[in-house]
Amino acid sequence: MIKRRKTRQIRVGGVRIGRGAPVSIQSMTKVETVDVGRTVAQIKRLEDAGCEIVRIAVKTPADTDAIRVIRKRIKIPLVADIHFYYRLALRAIAAGADKIRLNPGNIRKEEEVAAVIKAAKKAGIPIRIGVNSGSVVTRLPCHHVTRLQDRTSALVNAALRYVKLFEKHDFRDIIISLKSSDVVSTVEAYEAMSERCDYPLHLGVTAAGPYDAGIVKSSIGIGALLLKGIGDTIRVSLTADPVEEVVAAKRILSAIGARRFGPDLISCPTCGRCQVDLAGIVRELAQKLSSVNRQLPTKPLTIAVMGCEVNGPGEAREADIGVAFGRDSGMLFERGKILRKIPASKAVGELVKLITTYEVD
Amino acid sequence: MIKRRKTRQIRVGGVRIGRGAPVSIQSMTKVETVDVGRTVAQIKRLEDAGCEIVRIAVKTPADTDAIRVIRKRIKIPLVADIHFYYRLALRAIAAGADKIRLNPGNIRKEEEVAAVIKAAKKAGIPIRIGVNSGSVVTRLPCHHVTRLQDRTSALVNAALRYVKLFEKHDFRDIIISLKSSDVVSTVEAYEAMSERCDYPLHLGVTAAGPYDAGIVKSSIGIGALLLKGIGDTIRVSLTADPVEEVVAAKRILSAIGARRFGPDLISCPTCGRCQVDLAGIVRELAQKLSSVNRQLPTKPLTIAVMGCEVNGPGEAREADIGVAFGRDSGMLFERGKILRKIPASKAVGELVKLITTYEVD
Repeated sequence: MIKRRKTRQIRVGGVRIGRGAPVSIQSMTKVETVDVGRTVAQIKRLEDAGCEIVRIAVKTPADTDAIRVIRKRIKIPLVADIHFYYRLALRAIAAGADKIRLNPGNIRKEEEVAAVIKAAKKAGIPIRIGVNSGSVVTRLPCHHVTRLQDRTSALVNAALRYVKLFEKHDFRDIIISLKSSDVVSTVEAYEAMSERCDYPLHLGVTAAGPYDAGIVKSSIGIGALLLKGIGDTIRVSLTADPVEEVVAAKRILSAIGARRFGPDLISCPTCGRCQVDLAGIVRELAQKLSSVNRQLPTKPLTIAVMGCEVNGPGEAREADIGVAFGRDSGMLFERGKILRKIPASKAVGELVKLITTYEVD
Repeated sequence: MIKRRKTRQIRVGGVRIGRGAPVSIQSMTKVETVDVGRTVAQIKRLEDAGCEIVRIAVKTPADTDAIRVIRKRIKIPLVADIHFYYRLALRAIAAGADKIRLNPGNIRKEEEVAAVIKAAKKAGIPIRIGVNSGSVVTRLPCHHVTRLQDRTSALVNAALRYVKLFEKHDFRDIIISLKSSDVVSTVEAYEAMSERCDYPLHLGVTAAGPYDAGIVKSSIGIGALLLKGIGDTIRVSLTADPVEEVVAAKRILSAIGARRFGPDLISCPTCGRCQVDLAGIVRELAQKLSSVNRQLPTKPLTIAVMGCEVNGPGEAREADIGVAFGRDSGMLFERGKILRKIPASKAVGELVKLITTYEVD
């Protein structure tokens, strides 16, 4: 339904990005990289949650040494996040990093960038040109209209300068990000960039904040771009457990129909019509369906749990499995057909039974 | 920055919708309408959270009687949600409802709609044509591409049929919603409708599900439309406390820069570079800034709390108030200028002090 922008394709380890590849999910570790035990443990949790590419901060030579050890103990590709010191990129490449992220805001000298390009080319790994609002702009309060436009151009121009440099050195194994801490300039920067190159784009709203507010900013920014067909890999930034970033990323991709990661739960907000504890039923079912503490098999099902006769029967009928409640019982549906009447108290059990036995076409 | 679609303007009680009016926030009660005490108490909580228009389910004549009592005890306009029985709309109008919502999916006879139109016109109140996927479509599993297009047209056609009827009866005090339980057809339906009429649009993704997933679907659906300039009032549907719907709505409007409701918190996701407990600092600060349990004055400030020297100083400098941490201390910024170095342990206190004394231009 959504026509995706045509891009080149790059490979990060075994993961393809761009030109028809599924939009991949990234995250980043939040423990000290030299603490290999904790770093690996966090990456294992991210892998289990569905993270497909993971990035680590590389701020010292010791961090580059850690890359060798970490990489052997994880399954997904490892990206080295480099700032300020191009020599760390050279060391990270030598240590086996699957991708390098460079920040045009803090590694500016052509000869330094050229040295990294040369090493990446030799190693056959891609480089992300990762621009962030905090690294490229100065004193542009983000709530001011004119200055927001300045912010957008600052992001795009920083990326374009780097792209030109990379192309001059005949390197096109590039992926680009233009993350702003505000949603509007993030969306505008990616839109502008999507028209000016065919490199795949890594989407994200940077420093989006704590979980509840960050998820709103990330959903709008990443979601609006994906709906326009823009974006090849995504990272949700939250001041929270990185596993939450992966879960949110899966929810965004599911919501726009780009990928499916198990059941999609449709449930009404309830209102004065609702005669059962729908919120309680939904809470219990959602916990059982949770991708983190998974208690049920993962199937790409749509499950509707609806509280009354207004939209209930319609949504329940359209879903793969559904229940539409009336006074204290509900009508159970499967594949559009009524199965039977069930009491509200047995709803979760009955739904779980159906989900477990449902055979996806 | 976002050019808003030009619409007619309608009035719901004292709230204007459309043609330049601020995008307003709606919610709906989730207790039995005849239980006037609980209904009023829930509306008071919604008012305190920032809800600007509230809807109640009207399913019996007793519910319409409750309207008279409820309306006297609340400050915001009251909308009667009517399904199946047009006579309930007539009674709700007589009882003083500030707006009626009709569902084209379950009140279909022209003479019935005409009777409601006549009463609304006499009372001088608007009507929302509220279409929902659960009421108009049958057996169109929402994950199937072709059927999603069918769903979009079903929503739009149901609304257009009603609009034609209303215009035939010379009634244009209309607002329209086309809520689907999937994001893509919601966005497409509103886009299509926005090109076919100049009535204001009430945005929402219906039955978006429990909090965590629902907030993602609602943010993408409502956010993507608002970014296109479409939408004049919004309702976030969550299977959760309705106060959460209002908080989420405020977050969506803030994120796209449509309105401001107090501070916007920018904070980095942290990574291996971060040397302080940034998540803890942000959690404590976010609680103090929370619009629900507000402990601090509401000011439209951007506050950046950043964990390292990469994007920290940039974001902190651009924010109204910011702190960029290093090893165990942080640099405090106000209006782009460095104030002083502070220890991480005092960060929340120092930020709170600055927020309290900050004078907004």
